[in-house]
Amino acid sequence: MDKRIIEFRRQLNARLDPRRYEHSLSVSFTSIALAMRYGYDINKAELAGLLHDCAKCYSDETLIKQCGINGVELSEEEQQVKVTIHARYGAWLAKHQYHIQDEDVLSAIRYHTTGRPGMSLLEKIVFTADFIEPRREKAKRLPELRILAFENLDQTVYEILYDSLQYLKEQGGRIDSMTQKAFAYYQNKEREKA
Amino acid sequence: MDKRIIEFRRQLNARLDPRRYEHSLSVSFTSIALAMRYGYDINKAELAGLLHDCAKCYSDETLIKQCGINGVELSEEEQQVKVTIHARYGAWLAKHQYHIQDEDVLSAIRYHTTGRPGMSLLEKIVFTADFIEPRREKAKRLPELRILAFENLDQTVYEILYDSLQYLKEQGGRIDSMTQKAFAYYQNKEREKA
Repeated sequence: MDKRIIEFRRQLNARLDPRRYEHSLSVSFTSIALAMRYGYDINKAELAGLLHDCAKCYSDETLIKQCGINGVELSEEEQQVKVTIHARYGAWLAKHQYHIQDEDVLSAIRYHTTGRPGMSLLEKIVFTADFIEPRREKAKRLPELRILAFENLDQTVYEILYDSLQYLKEQGGRIDSMTQKAFAYYQNKEREKA
Repeated sequence: MDKRIIEFRRQLNARLDPRRYEHSLSVSFTSIALAMRYGYDINKAELAGLLHDCAKCYSDETLIKQCGINGVELSEEEQQVKVTIHARYGAWLAKHQYHIQDEDVLSAIRYHTTGRPGMSLLEKIVFTADFIEPRREKAKRLPELRILAFENLDQTVYEILYDSLQYLKEQGGRIDSMTQKAFAYYQNKEREKA
């Protein structure tokens, strides 16, 4: 077990609201389980899962301001769609406040809301764990996707991206281009397999 | 999420040593992941996993004494082999101290060290989670069994029982008859499939 985990949990428990902290703990352990299943490093999966929402305690305004102060580049689209800013700033915080040097871990935090084309195994693990973790209740098709996650990770990423885009379309929300690019990439991958 | 979980964690954290508490937390989340994979009730898996070692804070002498006081029957063999007493008394504690009424949960606590012939799905989940949970490091073949656990649960139970019996034989320790019966049962099941 990484020696920093207990201290990171203490800090996150102090900074996040109780529901968000429980979500972070659940994502850390769900990431571990997926790492077990797919033969990935358990400690790295735990760190990335635990810290993925470390910037979720700030308002959008604060996040945009802090990104500006600390040189975290945000596209105009990212500033408008907003939902991805905590992931971009979270990767910066993980590096500078939690002193994570591992680029795989930082990248999994950076892309946990949108995914991206050609995700690394750890990026897919955290992206999936964030969606299937046991405290989540509202998403469609959860029982089905929770089984699939342990059978076929690429297909699970595709299905989560599909459901996310459907949900955003139904809600009439603006859809960020990275999620669309990620979807197109994994849709293509699924079609090639068929 | 079961409303009792946060309070049970607090009580276990106060009663168990830190390493045992972290093990309990890890088994609770590993049980959840296996429940996701095999379509079992997440809340029941979490309760059973979290509480499985709730009696592990007592010495063997105290356990035997408390079993006598509270009418928990122990065979002569169980009193001699000792390693299973915390599971037998744990099921009693889960019922009377943590007020768990669910017989599936109590049974998964009762059989988590030995297994038994014809285990229920929850019994197999907790038995397996106890062995593969991420804090465990010393067991043989862990990476292999962590993958297998999400592919074939019966075979995983068989392999864990096999490794446990091998370990006890190498150590020259006395082997309890329930573990042997469980092994014979799952060995037969694997042979039937072949």
